[in-house]
Amino acid sequence: MKPFFQVQDVEQVHGYARALPPLPAERVGLTGALGRTLAADLEAPHDLPGFTRATMDGFALGAADTFGAGEGSPVYLEIGGEVLMGAAPAFSLTPGKCARIGTGGMLPAGADAVVMVEHSRLLDETSVEITSSVAPGTNTLGPADDAAIGQVLLSAGQRLRPQDLGLLAALGQESVAVFQRPLVGILSTGDEVVPVTSEPGPGQVRDVNTYTLATQVEMACGVPRALGLVDDSEEEIRRLVTASLEQNHLTLLSGGSSVGARDFTSQVFMSFESAEMLVHGVAVSPGKPFMWVRAGDKHLLGLPGQVASCLVTFHLLVEPILESLQGRPAEPFARFARLPAVLSRNLPSVPGREEYVRVALQQDNDQWRAEPLFGKSGLLTTLIQGQGLVRVPKDSEGLDAGSAVEVFVFPQ
Amino acid sequence: MKPFFQVQDVEQVHGYARALPPLPAERVGLTGALGRTLAADLEAPHDLPGFTRATMDGFALGAADTFGAGEGSPVYLEIGGEVLMGAAPAFSLTPGKCARIGTGGMLPAGADAVVMVEHSRLLDETSVEITSSVAPGTNTLGPADDAAIGQVLLSAGQRLRPQDLGLLAALGQESVAVFQRPLVGILSTGDEVVPVTSEPGPGQVRDVNTYTLATQVEMACGVPRALGLVDDSEEEIRRLVTASLEQNHLTLLSGGSSVGARDFTSQVFMSFESAEMLVHGVAVSPGKPFMWVRAGDKHLLGLPGQVASCLVTFHLLVEPILESLQGRPAEPFARFARLPAVLSRNLPSVPGREEYVRVALQQDNDQWRAEPLFGKSGLLTTLIQGQGLVRVPKDSEGLDAGSAVEVFVFPQ
Repeated sequence: MKPFFQVQDVEQVHGYARALPPLPAERVGLTGALGRTLAADLEAPHDLPGFTRATMDGFALGAADTFGAGEGSPVYLEIGGEVLMGAAPAFSLTPGKCARIGTGGMLPAGADAVVMVEHSRLLDETSVEITSSVAPGTNTLGPADDAAIGQVLLSAGQRLRPQDLGLLAALGQESVAVFQRPLVGILSTGDEVVPVTSEPGPGQVRDVNTYTLATQVEMACGVPRALGLVDDSEEEIRRLVTASLEQNHLTLLSGGSSVGARDFTSQVFMSFESAEMLVHGVAVSPGKPFMWVRAGDKHLLGLPGQVASCLVTFHLLVEPILESLQGRPAEPFARFARLPAVLSRNLPSVPGREEYVRVALQQDNDQWRAEPLFGKSGLLTTLIQGQGLVRVPKDSEGLDAGSAVEVFVFPQ
Repeated sequence: MKPFFQVQDVEQVHGYARALPPLPAERVGLTGALGRTLAADLEAPHDLPGFTRATMDGFALGAADTFGAGEGSPVYLEIGGEVLMGAAPAFSLTPGKCARIGTGGMLPAGADAVVMVEHSRLLDETSVEITSSVAPGTNTLGPADDAAIGQVLLSAGQRLRPQDLGLLAALGQESVAVFQRPLVGILSTGDEVVPVTSEPGPGQVRDVNTYTLATQVEMACGVPRALGLVDDSEEEIRRLVTASLEQNHLTLLSGGSSVGARDFTSQVFMSFESAEMLVHGVAVSPGKPFMWVRAGDKHLLGLPGQVASCLVTFHLLVEPILESLQGRPAEPFARFARLPAVLSRNLPSVPGREEYVRVALQQDNDQWRAEPLFGKSGLLTTLIQGQGLVRVPKDSEGLDAGSAVEVFVFPQ
């Protein structure tokens, strides 16, 4: 039985992606965790820095000793010691005494502030004039100023940046629990497609989608597994999809150039146990033929064979699935910067479907101008010349020149 | 002899970076080339697609046969064959004849356009009504429409995106010449700093800069080589810097908490053959103590030990060097998106130095608001809470609330 499928909106596809639970967590070392997504909130296991630290080079002292001090009315203090870096001072201060201290040094007992070396005049080895009055806490960090024990510092679902990894290091976490990277099998099909190493004969073109999809998956923090080219044959497609389904969380199949291939792709996808057709056709250009079959917790995805369409469809419809499996919001263009711009000319569109149009960007005084790249469908080079994409909403007949638009900028 | 060094402007430091020649090129496979920088222009080695291709499913025909055709006045054509994908058609068309063709198929001789299947009505196996008139070239790509032989498609210095790699695949380039990744030795120093695996005693903190710098280098497409922690001892620093100088293009040394360490770092750096002090102090906050010694074609860089300062200094002053060595413009914040925003409150600053202030971002109707994150210097957590940096120019006394600013958004 071949069910009838209604073309769905992009938002519905994103809804299915949003409903997916994340993959299980795994622990990875800090230096391998850049860009990975945190699987659990991070609570501070102890106070940070854990002791009172100087944030300037100068003199640790009791702030009360400096009250009234100024350039013209210095106070005189005795130098009662020097704080060594990385050790608790073996002495304490009494009123009238201070200690040399460097940035990062631990304040001795009896001190509650630091006067910068610029606000002091050394008289001899054991006495100093302080020419500035400071309040308690000045030029210091208290024991829990950076973080208090139990405080939630990072939240599950955050992607880890260098500074986040730095915080984990500061708290003694050598490794961190992140969501697993989705494993993604990649298949290209099409009787006219030959491997990159081949010299195409008449009517043939080289395989492009394997390379664009593999690097797009890499960029989305998935693990690409290129399975190669497959003929437009039901048997071959079944064999490779079956193998990929076993080994990967997602299987991407782009192409299927013949009309027959398009039919048996859906038949193959639906032939697996518990297969469920979530999407078969989306009201969007490019991306209309997108197909999504779920088989248990695995996903089989059909993408257009045309290179530019395949690339945009990945970002719009596949990336949200990869994000969701990594515990992130199921957003399209998740790694794209969003740039406000003004449309340089009219952009007509057909109502009833969303459209994503490639644009070049030019800076024009204080604003960015987005120039739609028209041209024949299927050109690789307009994709190369484009810096981003502009969305034309579903019910719009287009956007006028001068409209404010948001450009999704292709990541580099 | 210890020369006197004037504090330099950020722009001067970028000037030294800009003058560096790129590292030699190397060839890498396409799937390993994402984010790498192209070392030579790419000229199309042949036309692309190389033959006339259909961009729609339908009927290949001579456009002249359709002139005057319309929904109410169809023209009748004989179906003279079917184009198989991936092969040159074995037949040619004469006037009055057409051929079935799928998207991507090669047009037979005698055809110069394709009519979409939606604009046809099949009468029987061998005849069809065409209900739309098309011009020559409609729904086709000519042999050189995507690229003509010899055309420059990608330029040296471009960072390779998935679509660029796709174009290389289409042109049969299995590998690509890119500039080498700079090798970067990373050393942390400071008597108070202990490894991440240690329980810090009183006055001690864990090593953070090794992790932030390593992942920052990774993000900038360099190869990080963490060399570990080193005591604030001239001997130890000399030993490790000597080893790193031999093996790496850049050596980053962060910290040196004691006043003595700051002195002997510059002495160690200057002790190598042909060492030349380019920078010793920059008029910027953070980043003031930045030091750059060039020894032949190797670079020794001193960074502040304070974690937040070290991170910002890397992006501002080290990243342009890494970019330049990879044949890219010597720009700071090269991987940051730039977001126009409005400052939420006054941001005072000291004239005479540039300043980079951390901000949080909030969307407020159609615009982004940048909220300066004040707070004690040296806090890791305000760095974590920040989404980006705002620059206050050197000669400014600050920026007023409501000012338009550009936010450099931390990459994820």
